[in-house]
Amino acid sequence: MKKYSIIVAGGRGTRMGSEVPKQFLLMKGLPILMHTINKFHQAEDNIQIIITLPKDQIPTWKSLVEEYSFSTPHQVVTGGNTRFQSVDNALQYIPNQDCLIAIHDGVRPLVDTSVIQKSFTEAASFGTAIPTVALKESIRWVGENENRTEDRSEYRMVQTPQTFRSDVIFPAFENDYRDIFTDDASVAEFSGHSVHLFEGNYENIKITTPEDLKLGEALLN
Amino acid sequence: MKKYSIIVAGGRGTRMGSEVPKQFLLMKGLPILMHTINKFHQAEDNIQIIITLPKDQIPTWKSLVEEYSFSTPHQVVTGGNTRFQSVDNALQYIPNQDCLIAIHDGVRPLVDTSVIQKSFTEAASFGTAIPTVALKESIRWVGENENRTEDRSEYRMVQTPQTFRSDVIFPAFENDYRDIFTDDASVAEFSGHSVHLFEGNYENIKITTPEDLKLGEALLN
Repeated sequence: MKKYSIIVAGGRGTRMGSEVPKQFLLMKGLPILMHTINKFHQAEDNIQIIITLPKDQIPTWKSLVEEYSFSTPHQVVTGGNTRFQSVDNALQYIPNQDCLIAIHDGVRPLVDTSVIQKSFTEAASFGTAIPTVALKESIRWVGENENRTEDRSEYRMVQTPQTFRSDVIFPAFENDYRDIFTDDASVAEFSGHSVHLFEGNYENIKITTPEDLKLGEALLN
Repeated sequence: MKKYSIIVAGGRGTRMGSEVPKQFLLMKGLPILMHTINKFHQAEDNIQIIITLPKDQIPTWKSLVEEYSFSTPHQVVTGGNTRFQSVDNALQYIPNQDCLIAIHDGVRPLVDTSVIQKSFTEAASFGTAIPTVALKESIRWVGENENRTEDRSEYRMVQTPQTFRSDVIFPAFENDYRDIFTDDASVAEFSGHSVHLFEGNYENIKITTPEDLKLGEALLN
């Protein structure tokens, strides 16, 4: 089946305390988003990669592509105000025919190529494939006036790529946006699909703080 | 009020793929546990520090103290088979008089001194003080045959030091051990105490994998 990847990059860099949107910050001398795009290309030779960016960041991206002579094939699409809208916009560029679509955070450059590959094979079988990892820390549920310990073995941290068969993801995105759509799996779930989980790689963190950037550079070594 | 710290070090290093227990691994040329002890001493001049170690690791620790000329005052106590037992053993060395006791993981050397200080002032007021941080990733609840998305804003990740007033912690540890005692807060909670949460520092991770060690070194820079 033909494979696509939608790489969502919409960050504004505020949590980084930086003017530069976090997807454009340099890790080992290369913008984070380029690392991410390269991972998908390394994982799947014939993949078609679509990135979504806020409209006002597209000129910056184009000049970065030139500056770094970035030649990995990809298509740029304007993002929306929410992740849901960005993905929905990108889906318009994919023909609704038998295919597999991996939706990934632009600021997760540390995803293993094996995780990308597995997400496609599992999604082909199950319709959905979501990488998760165990929680390393205890968690507490926190309400307005109370909090309680939870059994952390009953929870998993959710990462990306969240990968879907076209017959699952296209109908799911015909729903109107709801606040509960915090990731793509929750959109498919709302459509009545069970969500298939598989083991991700721990290092596949979202680079959202200066500490993450340090970790990312350390892990790339 | 007099301040104590119980620093629990019981790791065997298996997750590190290393023969050396993780608390003895070097970060920037110094065993992790020494970094941790130093943080408490920096935070509170007059603190009394008790570390718990598995019996068979105590000779190694003593030779490390000599090798590194480690002079920060501390007392060594034999740990038990569980965290609960280790803390219970250490509590025997603290007089049950008005005092504050911070219980900390030996492999969390990246705790901020301000978090240690705050844990003592909050525990003095509320009886308990537990540092937590927001979840950066989505989580899913995972049952035997199903899983579902959860609202991550309703959960917090729990760190240490978990700090208590003596009138809370001594009676709590008179309970018999139960499997639900995954941290010290859960022991106090079981005794009927409400658990007071405050904001921890994100970098205060547990060093349990080789990636954590890389991150720890990057963050120490």
